[in-house]
Amino acid sequence: MSGDDSGFEGGESVISQRIDATAGRARATTITTRRGSIATPCFMPVGTRATVRALDSGDLERLGTQVMLANTYHLIMRPGPEVVAAAGGLHRFMALDTHILTDSGGYQVFSLEPKVDDDGVTFRSTYDGDSHRFTPENVVEMQHQLGSDIQMVLDVCPPLPSSDAVIRTAVERTAAWARRAAVTHAGLRSGGSTQALFGIVQGGVDTTMRTESAQRTVDIGFDGYGIGGLSVGEPRHEMLPALEAALDELPVARPRYLMGVGDPRSIIEAVALGVDMFDCVLPTRLGRHGTVLTSQGRVNLRNRQWMNDPGPLDATCTCEVCARYSRAYLRHLLIVGEPTCRRLVTIHNVHWTFALVSSLRAAIVDGTFDTVRAELSQAWLAGALSPTWP
Amino acid sequence: MSGDDSGFEGGESVISQRIDATAGRARATTITTRRGSIATPCFMPVGTRATVRALDSGDLERLGTQVMLANTYHLIMRPGPEVVAAAGGLHRFMALDTHILTDSGGYQVFSLEPKVDDDGVTFRSTYDGDSHRFTPENVVEMQHQLGSDIQMVLDVCPPLPSSDAVIRTAVERTAAWARRAAVTHAGLRSGGSTQALFGIVQGGVDTTMRTESAQRTVDIGFDGYGIGGLSVGEPRHEMLPALEAALDELPVARPRYLMGVGDPRSIIEAVALGVDMFDCVLPTRLGRHGTVLTSQGRVNLRNRQWMNDPGPLDATCTCEVCARYSRAYLRHLLIVGEPTCRRLVTIHNVHWTFALVSSLRAAIVDGTFDTVRAELSQAWLAGALSPTWP
Repeated sequence: MSGDDSGFEGGESVISQRIDATAGRARATTITTRRGSIATPCFMPVGTRATVRALDSGDLERLGTQVMLANTYHLIMRPGPEVVAAAGGLHRFMALDTHILTDSGGYQVFSLEPKVDDDGVTFRSTYDGDSHRFTPENVVEMQHQLGSDIQMVLDVCPPLPSSDAVIRTAVERTAAWARRAAVTHAGLRSGGSTQALFGIVQGGVDTTMRTESAQRTVDIGFDGYGIGGLSVGEPRHEMLPALEAALDELPVARPRYLMGVGDPRSIIEAVALGVDMFDCVLPTRLGRHGTVLTSQGRVNLRNRQWMNDPGPLDATCTCEVCARYSRAYLRHLLIVGEPTCRRLVTIHNVHWTFALVSSLRAAIVDGTFDTVRAELSQAWLAGALSPTWP
Repeated sequence: MSGDDSGFEGGESVISQRIDATAGRARATTITTRRGSIATPCFMPVGTRATVRALDSGDLERLGTQVMLANTYHLIMRPGPEVVAAAGGLHRFMALDTHILTDSGGYQVFSLEPKVDDDGVTFRSTYDGDSHRFTPENVVEMQHQLGSDIQMVLDVCPPLPSSDAVIRTAVERTAAWARRAAVTHAGLRSGGSTQALFGIVQGGVDTTMRTESAQRTVDIGFDGYGIGGLSVGEPRHEMLPALEAALDELPVARPRYLMGVGDPRSIIEAVALGVDMFDCVLPTRLGRHGTVLTSQGRVNLRNRQWMNDPGPLDATCTCEVCARYSRAYLRHLLIVGEPTCRRLVTIHNVHWTFALVSSLRAAIVDGTFDTVRAELSQAWLAGALSPTWP
């Protein structure tokens, strides 16, 4: 690893990070921001359009959410940054006091067959077909209007597999854009902004390019570092070496955020490599379709075997849904298409994922990480209910 | 009016009712059941398939729900009475401790072009196309399996307008079926059941037939009385005299339940005539479509005028949604189709309707009913936001 906080060169950071305990490369840390503190490893549920689908801000608070992720692309289109800004920013708009991280919108935009040039990216909105342009600068400014606690630079995120040339171009543009984003952000910060800005490491599954991208991003200096462009089609055995190569170059006392990854086995393995933060639509999307995350693997609630089952979704779970409702009742709601089921299983799956990362943190602190990691991996590999879990 | 509790001839009732105060014909009462007590006037939200759509049982409790209505037709089809019975009845199935009233299923079945004869009604299910038969007897038995606190007899509910002959047949069959339902129910009660059974008055908008139907229903004797077959297409000025004719024949100290009525102006006028209980899908259905009940009338949340409005749905409302969220935020959720909006506006509309009937009760107790009635009617007649409210 390449040292510590001294890697940060963007002026005094608005974020600090304390390493509470380590277990090999794995780390339990406390990130402190102007809003409060975040215990890591940490999972961030995705609130695409300023709400986690089927939940409200009260649900997120009761779940103990530390950070919610919101999608800049969607919020720019609806309701528009000026509406959110007029409301006083995302926290006041949503009436939510947890941390909020906004992505750059790049991930969505690059799925829309955009025109990309060295200066930025032009695309047609899925909302109204209008042409829009994102640049490293205006993406920083729009996230400033949204008022998140942490914003991400605009990066170039190619699908995998992609040719070396495509990955090389992505690394080059991501670095150049990151430098421009940092300049814009430094201006806002000197104007009083307390938003943090994270850089993003690209490089596909080529460990050499991952190393280079990480070094160039660290050279610019950010409040924290996202590792992007993974879990975009490649198998896990290709993802982990690329992730490790990137992490090796990052300063110790800066948050590391593996973007878009949230399946339990990947979380476990990435925590083992030293990742602090995760986001993914998986727990919430699965929940809406009646797939339940449990200590025994994933469970299809639609299965007839639960028709008269009086037990909770997961016997070991302490969430409000497991405390109150039976599989029989929740299955009924699912079968007849009641939206109540979507909300309740989403609550369970988010709680379950929070409990997973909390258990990893506790194991790092207690010195039992290897044992807990092996047990969890085994349950998710061998669980009779989930033989094909990714 | 035709006397008091002595009108009840079905054995000792499992329900008692105390008249707390009156204002003309209007009454504030307390209904006591084996489960607890119900302060009236009372509005019952409709939980069609064992949940109020978009809400869960925790929401219903926080709202202060006294009675939830569930639809026997839907529950018989999915998940089936045996599944609910295996779970220990609707309360345990739903994990809900409030009162539950089940309808007979007749209202739904009569909308399915059924074959009706003197013995019962045969219809094809909307769930699987299979042929089913409801009789006065098996509807009592199925509601017994569901385990509601209050069940309703199978009645014949014609649409309005209908010919005198159709109304006459409905009155005759409703009376004959009520007698058979009472016999079946008496058997269950002697076996230990503590479920209440309500008879139903039919008769269209013909006051003579309403009087006759009410007298014949009271002659059989029930724990309480539903007034059915109103708010099924007729204007309010035809509904109210028919309602009054029925109420005149009912015993004083038995609950009176106006079935399927829940628009604010009808509630106000029906309470003035002495109705105790109401149910309707209106507040919840409107809520799911973004129509908000407020002290100023109804509000279309989709309107652009709310785009930047920081205020609550209703400035006078004390619900958890108005305490937390702005019109601007809720409108955004509605516009982008987030299911969270459906739940939040449903919570508000149910709370608002509960507050309406509570304010009527308080006014009856305080001796201010005429004033409050006039003010509420005026707001809902004249509200600039709702000139066409029914």
